[in-house]
Amino acid sequence: MLRNLTRTKQSVLRLSTRSLATTSIPTTQKAIIFDKNNGPLEYKDIPVPKPKPNEILINVKYSGVCHTDLHAWKGDWPLPTKLPLVGGHEGAGVVVALGDEVKNFKIGDLAGIKWLNGSCQSCEYCVNGFESNCAQADLSGYTHDGSFQQYATADAVQAAKIPQGTDLAGVSPILCAGITVYKALKTAHLKAGDIVAISGAGGGLGSLAVQYAKAMGYRVLAIDGGKEKGELVKSLGAEFYVDYQSSPDLIEEIQSKTKGGPHGVINVSVSDKAISQSTKFVRSTGSVVLVGLPPNAVVHSDVFNHVIKSISIKGSYVGNRADTREAIEFFTRGLVKSPIKVVGLSELPGVYELMEQGKILGRYVVDTSK
Amino acid sequence: MLRNLTRTKQSVLRLSTRSLATTSIPTTQKAIIFDKNNGPLEYKDIPVPKPKPNEILINVKYSGVCHTDLHAWKGDWPLPTKLPLVGGHEGAGVVVALGDEVKNFKIGDLAGIKWLNGSCQSCEYCVNGFESNCAQADLSGYTHDGSFQQYATADAVQAAKIPQGTDLAGVSPILCAGITVYKALKTAHLKAGDIVAISGAGGGLGSLAVQYAKAMGYRVLAIDGGKEKGELVKSLGAEFYVDYQSSPDLIEEIQSKTKGGPHGVINVSVSDKAISQSTKFVRSTGSVVLVGLPPNAVVHSDVFNHVIKSISIKGSYVGNRADTREAIEFFTRGLVKSPIKVVGLSELPGVYELMEQGKILGRYVVDTSK
Amino acid sequence: MLRNLTRTKQSVLRLSTRSLATTSIPTTQKAIIFDKNNGPLEYKDIPVPKPKPNEILINVKYSGVCHTDLHAWKGDWPLPTKLPLVGGHEGAGVVVALGDEVKNFKIGDLAGIKWLNGSCQSCEYCVNGFESNCAQADLSGYTHDGSFQQYATADAVQAAKIPQGTDLAGVSPILCAGITVYKALKTAHLKAGDIVAISGAGGGLGSLAVQYAKAMGYRVLAIDGGKEKGELVKSLGAEFYVDYQSSPDLIEEIQSKTKGGPHGVINVSVSDKAISQSTKFVRSTGSVVLVGLPPNAVVHSDVFNHVIKSISIKGSYVGNRADTREAIEFFTRGLVKSPIKVVGLSELPGVYELMEQGKILGRYVVDTSK
Amino acid sequence: MLRNLTRTKQSVLRLSTRSLATTSIPTTQKAIIFDKNNGPLEYKDIPVPKPKPNEILINVKYSGVCHTDLHAWKGDWPLPTKLPLVGGHEGAGVVVALGDEVKNFKIGDLAGIKWLNGSCQSCEYCVNGFESNCAQADLSGYTHDGSFQQYATADAVQAAKIPQGTDLAGVSPILCAGITVYKALKTAHLKAGDIVAISGAGGGLGSLAVQYAKAMGYRVLAIDGGKEKGELVKSLGAEFYVDYQSSPDLIEEIQSKTKGGPHGVINVSVSDKAISQSTKFVRSTGSVVLVGLPPNAVVHSDVFNHVIKSISIKGSYVGNRADTREAIEFFTRGLVKSPIKVVGLSELPGVYELMEQGKILGRYVVDTSK
Repeated sequence: MLRNLTRTKQSVLRLSTRSLATTSIPTTQKAIIFDKNNGPLEYKDIPVPKPKPNEILINVKYSGVCHTDLHAWKGDWPLPTKLPLVGGHEGAGVVVALGDEVKNFKIGDLAGIKWLNGSCQSCEYCVNGFESNCAQADLSGYTHDGSFQQYATADAVQAAKIPQGTDLAGVSPILCAGITVYKALKTAHLKAGDIVAISGAGGGLGSLAVQYAKAMGYRVLAIDGGKEKGELVKSLGAEFYVDYQSSPDLIEEIQSKTKGGPHGVINVSVSDKAISQSTKFVRSTGSVVLVGLPPNAVVHSDVFNHVIKSISIKGSYVGNRADTREAIEFFTRGLVKSPIKVVGLSELPGVYELMEQGKILGRYVVDTSK
Repeated sequence: MLRNLTRTKQSVLRLSTRSLATTSIPTTQKAIIFDKNNGPLEYKDIPVPKPKPNEILINVKYSGVCHTDLHAWKGDWPLPTKLPLVGGHEGAGVVVALGDEVKNFKIGDLAGIKWLNGSCQSCEYCVNGFESNCAQADLSGYTHDGSFQQYATADAVQAAKIPQGTDLAGVSPILCAGITVYKALKTAHLKAGDIVAISGAGGGLGSLAVQYAKAMGYRVLAIDGGKEKGELVKSLGAEFYVDYQSSPDLIEEIQSKTKGGPHGVINVSVSDKAISQSTKFVRSTGSVVLVGLPPNAVVHSDVFNHVIKSISIKGSYVGNRADTREAIEFFTRGLVKSPIKVVGLSELPGVYELMEQGKILGRYVVDTSK
Repeated sequence: MLRNLTRTKQSVLRLSTRSLATTSIPTTQKAIIFDKNNGPLEYKDIPVPKPKPNEILINVKYSGVCHTDLHAWKGDWPLPTKLPLVGGHEGAGVVVALGDEVKNFKIGDLAGIKWLNGSCQSCEYCVNGFESNCAQADLSGYTHDGSFQQYATADAVQAAKIPQGTDLAGVSPILCAGITVYKALKTAHLKAGDIVAISGAGGGLGSLAVQYAKAMGYRVLAIDGGKEKGELVKSLGAEFYVDYQSSPDLIEEIQSKTKGGPHGVINVSVSDKAISQSTKFVRSTGSVVLVGLPPNAVVHSDVFNHVIKSISIKGSYVGNRADTREAIEFFTRGLVKSPIKVVGLSELPGVYELMEQGKILGRYVVDTSK
Repeated sequence: MLRNLTRTKQSVLRLSTRSLATTSIPTTQKAIIFDKNNGPLEYKDIPVPKPKPNEILINVKYSGVCHTDLHAWKGDWPLPTKLPLVGGHEGAGVVVALGDEVKNFKIGDLAGIKWLNGSCQSCEYCVNGFESNCAQADLSGYTHDGSFQQYATADAVQAAKIPQGTDLAGVSPILCAGITVYKALKTAHLKAGDIVAISGAGGGLGSLAVQYAKAMGYRVLAIDGGKEKGELVKSLGAEFYVDYQSSPDLIEEIQSKTKGGPHGVINVSVSDKAISQSTKFVRSTGSVVLVGLPPNAVVHSDVFNHVIKSISIKGSYVGNRADTREAIEFFTRGLVKSPIKVVGLSELPGVYELMEQGKILGRYVVDTSK
């Protein structure tokens, strides 16, 4: 009955010559939307957006939930969000309409909505593959309505291509978490056989990082707390495990296990202390990569140590289009699995609560049909 | 007649290239030596050292004086020095004897003594061109008697090759200061046309950095204090000058002059504040290079800024053999000049005093014959 | 009075930046067009094209003439051209209209039409900065009407940005010839101080290559024939000149002058023999770059020599958007000058004739107003 | 009885203060030696060599047999061999004596003899990690007596470090074949997830290349002939197999299987035709690597194709010290296995015969004790 009601609302939205003749796109849809930062997260009907000439319209099936979504809702980052806002930037679905200028997607293709929805493609950052650093970057679920709705628009050039047959729930966290850790690993500039430490290896991003690192031919030293985390990361391919809760001397233990320190460190865990420690245990000439965005955190590095050991501390933001293609390919080749828990889109407010309480393990994914 | 006599000695020397020509190499020589850190710097006669099978003996003609020499004398770095010690690691002279296994030098060649006197050539750092990071690194004027003497030994593999005809007084500061700033510039990974900021551009290292940067095709933004420094750096090739003494807002001024910030920053000036500022004004995706070794200095970098701008903070220690060849070649091609003041070796203690008082501009070079 | 009138028109244009100011853009224009390959090159009135949502309309002031234009007219390359066709892909002018989705240009900006008019921005080549290798590459003056007309369209993302105040006649050959040799030099992966040989250094592309190489900090060995060419290339910054007409042994002379061979070779001259010779005289571990597109040419390389010397033979096609920005910046900084001869657009057929006869030195540029 | 006799010949050879007190080094030993190229390969007693100050003496236990050994014996390469000559450059054994200046090995360490026995460590090639390109390169089994004897000398800096506990028979082919294919793979400059074609994948070098490629995170397309080879390479980790004997169109089949061609091609098989084909099927912007040294072979590449596809043809000679460390580590980590057949050193002439007849599959290893 409810379903019929919903159907009744659907009127055919014809999108010029390129529309899909056999199916119809509704005029309204379900979404989680808020009017002001920290305001109520309402699950309600809103209009289906129309793609601009350079955009595609994606029928989002699943969307991962990321800490950034919480920041967007709270508005506690320096950059203001669009308001009212539909959050979400890990959406996987099916292309249902194309803007007139779109040539790289067809109706029926699978596509992904990611953090970078669009950029100018013309500034010095864009032309050098650093499109996330573009001053005109348009961000899904932040400055552009995101994937916590059933139909979302995305710039066709930036939208992720997802091969037919891909598990859409599983791939959704790859679209931000996966790409981000993959990019961080590339930023470390390692070669096959090098050792990479993942600080916070047992968490959502960390467990993806372990798998990507292994698939890239690196040897993984996982850092986290407790026995269970140790078993988890070993099952994902870590060669070494260091338990910061029980280690009598973390720096010494890491350097000893790796005969001089790891060649690279990915700081998924973002405590000031962990980051500063990583400048101590990293191997000479190695790289410490910063990847999270903790507000007010500061990295401290002793200059004498920094210079004598010739280390680098590198910030890694989000991946570009090439990183996206590659990160998805590792997933579709079966080398990376994301540990997800699927709930209905309507349950998103509860997920935010858990996230605020720090009670989330793995990754929540919302099913937009529920 | 005197000339003929000299000729005769020379031909003896040439005939026996692999043995010490006892008539031409004295058994004692003048040197500045100290028995304990901070102890008296004595100018006196000491024995001429004998080269090991893998070493050459260099008749040092000139030696630059570097801040590191002051640290070696004071013993205020974590690493202990050899004692008694002859300091100095910017020595330029003539090869007068060869160890039995030396194949890459001939008697009469010009050669340079540099900070890295020798390394194992076999560890992972050495085999990857990071020989300064070798755990067995032997350091001239620190763990190996250096260039503040008339005859000094150097590992033939690490000794610098200096082309015949080179001005030995002029090239001496290149052997540490020159190589160091050249290496720092390489570490910034810039391409021709990029803008590099040199913080402390008017000093000894800074003025070399400006010239190397220009010769490498970079555009130079020089940072220092006062009008005179501004004129100096512009005469050396800087395109922009920012006077930190008079600038109302250093970060804003630099970003405005460079339309977004320099692509790289070489922090020759090593104040904590200057380094931290450089993480703010550097262009997104750019590199901040640390090159000095101030005791107790700490670099602070805001993680959010570091990640969002995707910048790197890189430690650059000293150059390897390839950097040495290249840095000397820029000098011999006439693209880099070092502003030196030549005094007698016996006057070295006075130079140390000036250095402690921070009264040195440019580079002092000692003439070992005086 | 006339001036006032003009002003009035301009302000109308400025007020409506996103719509065609119908009073200022004519409906027809002068162009050189041909209906079939090798057919008559007609100078006549054709309609002014309208920009698509992602395109800009450029009032072309000047356009360089390139050998590729001759190939397009003759149709002697494997890839078929659009017909009828307006050639030209080195057009410099003023933006007079913008498609609805264009955000990176304003009316009145200077812009350039280059060989790559547009690409998909989404395939693996595009996302990795190899957009010229895109299967959907749209080529100016080949598959898209080019710059031999007064008004031409260009994809806004690919159109070159030209700073205000730039000499439009002078910059036009940079848009293909300049970018191409600059890209070839980047492809050689040299570092400042390395020696690069330019084979065919005295010609149009060669003389640009000499200047770019010098601006990038390389030492240039120029190869060409005759005394005059020698004087020309030395005046442009070449350090060495080898005259293939008078050299008794080209390989020996080059290796001797460069003490082992140049680190890179840019084969602007495209004879089979010259290319094969360059694999012999290039320094061990060096790069031979192929940059021209001679029909039916084959490079022959002796495998033993290739492997023992560990050399590379690299094909360099045309630059991407980043190369374009950089190549233009070298020009606007005054480091590169193009030796041009300006004639009216109507005289283009005569230029083609000269080109066929091999009688062109330097670069012809057509003024579209004549 | 024979054994006793041999023992009797052993007189204690004391190597100064560094000799191993508890064991003794004989004065003579068994070796395969020849007096002139193509002359008899004699299995006989020759003196044990004495290490120079910079050398170690290795008691060779096993040595791989390589095609290069055949060339050295025949003398059919441009570079003349030492005569008389003990061949072999894949020797694995135990350090039994040290020259006075050796600091990086201890008596009892495991060490390997490889193709590059020593180099000057000082020329531009050596200082840039291209020591195999050194003009003074000293080659084991070619210009320096090699590993087809029980005791061989090696420059301590170039000798390979082999971890305690390593299978010496198994590691011996790694010392040339393994390092060579590993280096070739590095030369292709691929990233994890890229596809690499191995032409000649089922042979000795090829099967090592398949395993290294897989361990480095690449996807492998193996090319060889016949079903058995196909099964072999798939068991080693190849994802695709193309049978050149049965493929109706090799280029088409490879491009179709890899959706555009492999990103890199390693030409272990060295026929002119195979190499030229690889320039056709390689992906745009990809690399074709030449690694074998067939006499008189020539690579032909169509310039138009080369430039339009922006491909590179790269010569890869032998690995440097870093490549050696890394290649051995992949072996000791168990990621690479070499399919060897062990025979006595005295049987080496028979192995040469099989090699000449092209009847060898996998790698022969000689046991120097037999």
